[in-house]
Amino acid sequence: MAYEFLGPRKIIAGEGSITSIPNEVKSLGGKKPLIVTDTGIANTGLLRQLTSVLDEQKIPYGIFSEVEPDPGIAIMEKGKRVFREGQYDLLIAFGGGSSIDASKVISCLATNEGGVKDYLGIVVFKNNPISIIAIPTTAGTGSEVTHNAIVTDKDQKLKLIIRSLQMLPKTAILDPTLLNSLPSQMIAYTGIDALTHAIESFFSLRSNLMTQQLSLSAVRLIYPSLIPFKENPKNIDLASKMLHGSCLAGIAFTNGGLGAVHALSHPIGSHYHVPHGLACALFLSQILKENKEAALGKYGVLLEALGMNSQGLSPEQGADKLIEAVEAFIKRLGIPSNLNTIGIKHEVQPMMIEDAMKSPGLMANPKKFDRNQIIELLRSVR
Amino acid sequence: MAYEFLGPRKIIAGEGSITSIPNEVKSLGGKKPLIVTDTGIANTGLLRQLTSVLDEQKIPYGIFSEVEPDPGIAIMEKGKRVFREGQYDLLIAFGGGSSIDASKVISCLATNEGGVKDYLGIVVFKNNPISIIAIPTTAGTGSEVTHNAIVTDKDQKLKLIIRSLQMLPKTAILDPTLLNSLPSQMIAYTGIDALTHAIESFFSLRSNLMTQQLSLSAVRLIYPSLIPFKENPKNIDLASKMLHGSCLAGIAFTNGGLGAVHALSHPIGSHYHVPHGLACALFLSQILKENKEAALGKYGVLLEALGMNSQGLSPEQGADKLIEAVEAFIKRLGIPSNLNTIGIKHEVQPMMIEDAMKSPGLMANPKKFDRNQIIELLRSVR
Repeated sequence: MAYEFLGPRKIIAGEGSITSIPNEVKSLGGKKPLIVTDTGIANTGLLRQLTSVLDEQKIPYGIFSEVEPDPGIAIMEKGKRVFREGQYDLLIAFGGGSSIDASKVISCLATNEGGVKDYLGIVVFKNNPISIIAIPTTAGTGSEVTHNAIVTDKDQKLKLIIRSLQMLPKTAILDPTLLNSLPSQMIAYTGIDALTHAIESFFSLRSNLMTQQLSLSAVRLIYPSLIPFKENPKNIDLASKMLHGSCLAGIAFTNGGLGAVHALSHPIGSHYHVPHGLACALFLSQILKENKEAALGKYGVLLEALGMNSQGLSPEQGADKLIEAVEAFIKRLGIPSNLNTIGIKHEVQPMMIEDAMKSPGLMANPKKFDRNQIIELLRSVR
Repeated sequence: MAYEFLGPRKIIAGEGSITSIPNEVKSLGGKKPLIVTDTGIANTGLLRQLTSVLDEQKIPYGIFSEVEPDPGIAIMEKGKRVFREGQYDLLIAFGGGSSIDASKVISCLATNEGGVKDYLGIVVFKNNPISIIAIPTTAGTGSEVTHNAIVTDKDQKLKLIIRSLQMLPKTAILDPTLLNSLPSQMIAYTGIDALTHAIESFFSLRSNLMTQQLSLSAVRLIYPSLIPFKENPKNIDLASKMLHGSCLAGIAFTNGGLGAVHALSHPIGSHYHVPHGLACALFLSQILKENKEAALGKYGVLLEALGMNSQGLSPEQGADKLIEAVEAFIKRLGIPSNLNTIGIKHEVQPMMIEDAMKSPGLMANPKKFDRNQIIELLRSVR
């Protein structure tokens, strides 16, 4: 079967690569960029690392720092108004997945009529969106190289997806120095999100030779680096490996799809506002168990990518060894194994079931689940 | 150190993906494409596979089928005249590296003043080149995703390089069915070229975390597939693995550089008109030996990518095991080990030395060679 693969436009990486920003702004024809970020980042020295580079080169800019975790429709539409009123001409997304996703949506709304709800699903925008330079400050979402954005509908408690090839950032800047003050819990949650992207995109029914290779490369970078990085966030080499792993996983899943873990984690995330990586971790090893029969041939390859030997093992044994390794890994990261231990009283709501059932991740998952199985899976993370 | 990485624009792959051509022509705004190919392909049914798809959709097109192996300046400038006089608006490169490289040069000359010699080295073209859809019919050069082209100066017996980000094809189509009538010697030569790209880009001093992962992925696809593919060119799965491996190696080396093998193989190729892959094979294991000290830490990783165990081996032993494996591989492919056995009387010419000494590959090679060492290396392939 034929498939299409879209590469990232341009990646600038390495220690201090943030200093390339003025050049990138100019080469994209920008004269007055708007920085989109969150309050947390605005209040730390992190934002100054970006603005001081712009100041030095006398590039005027604005700051929209109101992006919230799991950003909603209202904040994105507010961002659009700020962008239009300030007559900006370029977006600099600076932060985690929330800031980058918000920038993507703002970039499309800024040049097109209507609001977020007019553009759900797979979209071709009439007018070209504003160009984006994306600078991740976490190693997790891979949003800097994907062509989708998640918008949380706070009223309906739903995560909405907008997919458009036009949303792909023009430049991604992977500067490991920006990660050196990340809290260790944030490293764990964003890192397990990246690992989940790598694993799910590898198993995805929409994956192909190209995306599978990228998924495995991502696993090879993330798995040995995440725990040491959590223990030593100032280590530039580890931060760089995590950023590259997260980025490779992003290229893989935006082209090759995800799986049931993402289908299940989104409703949990939008109902209880738990970090997306935590929600993924709750389901990861369980879905690996469920997929065993449907995708048995892939477990040994993945096991080798973790750096473990699969020789002499039956496919079954290889799969079990992989699942054990992933379970142990999540435990060593200190990620809770259910919602109860973090004080969330969880009951499966009908909306959660609907949300999971219509997720594209579910369609790309090797094993097919019916409604009752989805309910069981959602219930299991209590 | 910061680095820049440019992704491929769009890859369409899989059995029958050539049927996507009309869509791609339209989406790139093409109304009358010029197909650039060689006489060999024009005389086989291969070209009809492309033209019949265009005919069906009533897309008018022209054919320039005069590309020679190691295409020279004259043929590229002739291609430019054909393009301009026929008032074409898009290029379809259909063939091996020669046809794709020729298309790249034609694409730039068509919209800019001057001839090939006005644009050597790293170039920013004043006017945007014509868009290219690249369709490789061999799995070797990776030219469908690189931003460089090799032009042979037949008078001076030199391989000239033009590098421009603007030359990157807009779409690469990897259809494995196009490879099913490749002669086995061609499979061996183009395949070892792809493997050399993967290995040299992995060792390159200009490589980075991203390109190294792509290089290793390329090795993982090419090494186990090349010999079986040579024995069974109608196997679609193997053809697909070779095309993807060659493509990944192309993305890796165009962003991360090559090494001494390429520096040495170009003068041999331009003097004796031997296939580029053969020229690479003559030097590959030898340069791996030379680089041992300067890049010892990398051999074990590469060995694992070949599917061999490096556990329990010292770095030295791992390097030796890798070199032996590569030597045995070239032998099993039936590639001659020197020029004498194929009837070429080789004497090192001063021009060859100059050519190798100023090659960018030499600068990116882990070990530094002086002039005398280069002479020795060139002499060794007699």
